Amino acid sequence: MSIRHLTAKLAQQIDEELMGSVGAFSIDQLMELAGLACAQALAKVYSKEKYRKVLVCCGPGNQGGDGLVAARHLDMFGYEPTIYMPKPGFKDIYKRLQKQCENMKIESLPHDVSMDALRSTLSSFDVILDAIFGFSFEGPVRAPFDEVLPLLSSSRKPIVSVDIPSGWGVEKGNEEGTGIVPDVLVSLTAPKEGVRSFKGRHFLGGRFVPKAMEEKFQLNLPEYPGFDQIVELPQI
Amino acid sequence: MSIRHLTAKLAQQIDEELMGSVGAFSIDQLMELAGLACAQALAKVYSKEKYRKVLVCCGPGNQGGDGLVAARHLDMFGYEPTIYMPKPGFKDIYKRLQKQCENMKIESLPHDVSMDALRSTLSSFDVILDAIFGFSFEGPVRAPFDEVLPLLSSSRKPIVSVDIPSGWGVEKGNEEGTGIVPDVLVSLTAPKEGVRSFKGRHFLGGRFVPKAMEEKFQLNLPEYPGFDQIVELPQI
Repeated sequence: MSIRHLTAKLAQQIDEELMGSVGAFSIDQLMELAGLACAQALAKVYSKEKYRKVLVCCGPGNQGGDGLVAARHLDMFGYEPTIYMPKPGFKDIYKRLQKQCENMKIESLPHDVSMDALRSTLSSFDVILDAIFGFSFEGPVRAPFDEVLPLLSSSRKPIVSVDIPSGWGVEKGNEEGTGIVPDVLVSLTAPKEGVRSFKGRHFLGGRFVPKAMEEKFQLNLPEYPGFDQIVELPQI
Repeated sequence: MSIRHLTAKLAQQIDEELMGSVGAFSIDQLMELAGLACAQALAKVYSKEKYRKVLVCCGPGNQGGDGLVAARHLDMFGYEPTIYMPKPGFKDIYKRLQKQCENMKIESLPHDVSMDALRSTLSSFDVILDAIFGFSFEGPVRAPFDEVLPLLSSSRKPIVSVDIPSGWGVEKGNEEGTGIVPDVLVSLTAPKEGVRSFKGRHFLGGRFVPKAMEEKFQLNLPEYPGFDQIVELPQI
């Protein structure tokens, strides 16, 4: 049995059940483990010796929160993350995660950095973590992201995307060809329909799905190795 | 500079600062990472092939919460944990962590299991995780723990203790000789004064201390390897 790819609706339902009576997890817990998994995947592929400077791009929603957690763990791992939030989120959890990063002295780009300044600063980074849009994304891409995404793509830096590369449809993928094309993808909980054709290195994170839930949704998740929070999926 | 050993008061202060304005962490986050570290340390020493059945003994306080998180991660790692809470905690976070374990179908011993029944069931486990008392423990050991601790010790099963072996003074250690003597110790954030003379394998967990806080308290923490949540300390 191969791993199941989730529709946007199913991803939403699983997320709700994880935080509802079935999972009983708090968003703090799930984001902590998801963000840790993203940081681990990046560290697995891009060593801190060669790729020390990481630009962590965070959207305004929960995926941006995963990105903030990942930035904090990358800092603990010995990387030099810098956060870029073109549109900072306003939820309480988001603000707390931001504060934690500030307390760690993790730098941020100004949220309204000009596109010219962004273009020139991009060259100083070694790798980009794309935590802009997640499984609740519905196009089209609006400002300022309509300018940010092409700039990130044109930087030619290695990109690690979280769950759904930004700009891709959760189910349709990069049909329109306007999304980010990452080198590495970290699917959370289970991969989404839209990434079936993704060709780079592909990791799965979210080692918190109760067995009963995995069976109910027939996720057919692979076994995670040792005590890692990630497992690499076969490349297509 | 060698690693700093904390007094009970300092451990308390650091904990408060981590959750106060200095760290801004929620208890959900800290417990998740602490419990994950405990599960990783156990998994590092005791393979699931040979030590599948783990009795996770949880006290009523925050250390019991770390134990519940560890039980859940051990389950995800492929162990068969069973939880034993002689006195279940009553805080909201504790109850939520309990519920998460129930949802994972992790079994529990009845909290009021008789000492005879406990004695005979102990032989069916391969290793014990001792998450009973933490850095806020002050003796003497009261019922039912005054009977539980000697029973765990007399089981001759390998024991992994969290932060402070249960029954030890946070600063005085096992002076009275009535505490659990574990094979493995997982200190959280920084080791406590009382464990200076501990002779077994010793791990440090709690990879979330901001650099500024580490410096302020002169903790002299060692470097954690790769993206692990634990680092092994030299044996004395």
